[in-house]
Amino acid sequence: MRTVFWDYESNTVKLIDQRKLPFEFEIAEFEDYSDVAMAIREMYVRGAPAIGATAAFGMALAAYQSSAKEKQGLLADLEIAAGILNSARPTAVNLSWAIKLQQELAQDQSLRTIDEVCSAILQSAQHIADDDVKLNRRMGFNGAELIADGDTILHHCNTGALATVDWGTALGVVFAAHEQGKQIHVLVDETRPRLQGARLTAWELQNRGIPFDLIADNAAGHFLRTGQVNIVLVGSDRTAANGDVANKIGTYKLAVVARENGVPFYPVVPTSTIDLSLANGDLIPIEERPQSEVLNAIDRPLAPAGVSARNPAFDITPHRYVTGIVTEEGIVYPPFAITIQNAVHKAQSQRKED
Amino acid sequence: MRTVFWDYESNTVKLIDQRKLPFEFEIAEFEDYSDVAMAIREMYVRGAPAIGATAAFGMALAAYQSSAKEKQGLLADLEIAAGILNSARPTAVNLSWAIKLQQELAQDQSLRTIDEVCSAILQSAQHIADDDVKLNRRMGFNGAELIADGDTILHHCNTGALATVDWGTALGVVFAAHEQGKQIHVLVDETRPRLQGARLTAWELQNRGIPFDLIADNAAGHFLRTGQVNIVLVGSDRTAANGDVANKIGTYKLAVVARENGVPFYPVVPTSTIDLSLANGDLIPIEERPQSEVLNAIDRPLAPAGVSARNPAFDITPHRYVTGIVTEEGIVYPPFAITIQNAVHKAQSQRKED
Repeated sequence: MRTVFWDYESNTVKLIDQRKLPFEFEIAEFEDYSDVAMAIREMYVRGAPAIGATAAFGMALAAYQSSAKEKQGLLADLEIAAGILNSARPTAVNLSWAIKLQQELAQDQSLRTIDEVCSAILQSAQHIADDDVKLNRRMGFNGAELIADGDTILHHCNTGALATVDWGTALGVVFAAHEQGKQIHVLVDETRPRLQGARLTAWELQNRGIPFDLIADNAAGHFLRTGQVNIVLVGSDRTAANGDVANKIGTYKLAVVARENGVPFYPVVPTSTIDLSLANGDLIPIEERPQSEVLNAIDRPLAPAGVSARNPAFDITPHRYVTGIVTEEGIVYPPFAITIQNAVHKAQSQRKED
Repeated sequence: MRTVFWDYESNTVKLIDQRKLPFEFEIAEFEDYSDVAMAIREMYVRGAPAIGATAAFGMALAAYQSSAKEKQGLLADLEIAAGILNSARPTAVNLSWAIKLQQELAQDQSLRTIDEVCSAILQSAQHIADDDVKLNRRMGFNGAELIADGDTILHHCNTGALATVDWGTALGVVFAAHEQGKQIHVLVDETRPRLQGARLTAWELQNRGIPFDLIADNAAGHFLRTGQVNIVLVGSDRTAANGDVANKIGTYKLAVVARENGVPFYPVVPTSTIDLSLANGDLIPIEERPQSEVLNAIDRPLAPAGVSARNPAFDITPHRYVTGIVTEEGIVYPPFAITIQNAVHKAQSQRKED
C-alpha cells in the first residue's frame, strides 16, 4: 500500500490519513485539488517526497477537473491550481519541484488536446510516484554502506514509507541495512510537537520487526554523549546548494551535539529535495505552524488555557555539521557546493534518459 | 502557599499535588513517611530543593510515628526511614543532604528524650524550608544582575516556586528581574516527557503576568541559532565538585548549542545541591524512570501498543559548557573546582552562624 496513489476507477487521489496513525488506519479520497492542498496543509500527508508526489497527483486532478474547452484555458486553470497547491506548505521544495514539472509538461507544444494534456500529466504524476519508490530503494542501499552490524542508529521524525510514496529516505537506509541481515537498533526521537517518531516511525519499525526504543527528544543528547549512538540519520525538506539542510524542528540540535561527540550525522536526501537556486539554508522559508500543536499532544491539552506558543516546524542545519549526504546517486561529502551539484546534474540526466 | 509544609494541627506533611497541575489544584496530606517517599517517587513533588525539604519533613513524620520508648529505638526507626526516603529518587542530592542533616541532629547528645528529638527534627525541617525560601530569593537577585532590560531567557523544566519550597531557582532569577521592572520574555521548553515546562512553568509565569511563549523542546536550537535568545537559565539536581551539572534530561543539548552560538548558559544552584564528594558529573547516578512517561503525554497514548521506550530523567552537562553558576553566595566562574568549593564553605559557615 502506497502513501499516495491515483484511483484509476474513480479518477481520485487517495491518501493514508497519517493524522490518525497508529490508532486508526484510514484512506482519504479526494476529487478536488483544493482539498488535496488542504490535506497537505493539515498533514494527512507529510514528508517532502510524499508531498511532492501528492502535489503532482493534485495537478492531475486539477487537469481532469478543468472545464476548459481549449488548451489555453486548461493552462490557465492549472496556473490557478499550481498557486493553491504551492501555498499549502512552504518548506519542502518537492512541492514546488513537482508542480513546476507538471506545468512545464502541460506547456509542451506536442500536447495539443485537453485529453492529451490530462493523460500526460497523470502519467507524469504516476511516473514521479513510481520513480520515488525506485530511487528511495537505491538510496537506502547506498546509505546502508554506512551501517555496521551491531550499530545503534539515532533517527528524528518520520522518514519511512509514510514520508515518501513508499520505502523511505533515512528510514529507508535502516530498512536496507535490516534487509542485508545486519543486527541494528534504532533510537526513535518522538519528535514533538506532531510526534511523527512516536506515531509513525514506531509503527513502521514495529511492522517490520526492527528493534527500537522510543525516546523523548530531550534524551537524544544523553545517548550521544554517553557513546550509545553510532550514527545519526535524518531526512530533509530542502537542502541548499551549499549543503545546509532544512529538516524537522530539532534536527539542528542533534547535528551540533553529534559533531561535539564525534558521531557521524547523515541527511538522506533524494536529489528532488535539493534546491540549487538557494545559496544557503538561511534563504529557506521556515514554516511556523499553529500554536495548538505545541499546546496539545494529539488533542490532549498540556498547558494552562490562554497560554501562547511558538511553533517553527523546521530548522536549518548549517553544512559544517553535516558529515555527508546520502542521495540516490551515491553519498556526497564536502565540499558540498561542488558535490551536491554533481549529484543533482547526474540525477537530471538519468531522468532524461528514462 | 508553599509547595510543601507541616500542618501543626494534624502533625501531617502537606504537598501540592503537582501531577495534576495546571488542570486541578489539590493538596495531598501524608501521615506516614513511607507515603511521603512514594509521593517523591511518583512526583507529587519534584525539583531538588523541594525534594530536600519534603524529605526533611518526612524524617520529622518518621520521628513522630515512632513507637520507640527510648532514644536508641528512635534512632533505629529513623535509620529505617532514612533508607526508605533515600531510595525514593537517586539524582537530586538534596534528598540525601536533608536526610543526613536530620540524622546527625537526632544523634546530638544534648537531645535526650524522645520528645526533644522529635521537636528538634521538626524544627530543623521547618528551618530547612524557611531557609530555602530566603536563600532562593537572595540567589534570584544575585542572578538578576545577568538579565538586561529586553532580554529573552530560554528556560528548561520547572525551577520555580513549585520546584522549591517557594520562589524558585532559575525561575527565581526571572521573577527577580521582573520585580526589578525589567521587560523580559521567556521561551519555555515544554520539557517532555513529564511536561514540567508546559504544565508548571507556564502556570507560574501566567500567574505572575510575565510574558512567555511555550515551545517544543525541539525548537530551542532554532531560537538559539537565529539570535533570539540572550541567556539560558536552568536548575540543577546535583552539581559535582568540578562544576559538571546533572539536570533534567535535555539540559546538556541546550548547553552545547548555547555555547556553539555564544549564548551564556547559567545553572542556578543553591549550595545544598552541590555535591563536593563527587569529583565529576559521570559519578552522578542518572535515574531511568518508567517507559510509560515517554509512551504517553499525561496518560494520553502517543505510540503504538507494545512499543518499548528508554527514559533517562536527567543528563550531565560537562562544566566546559557552563558559563557561570548562580548560587545564594553569588555567581561563581571557572575554575569551578575552586570557586564552587569556596561558595559551599561560605554557605556552611553562614548556616552555622545562624
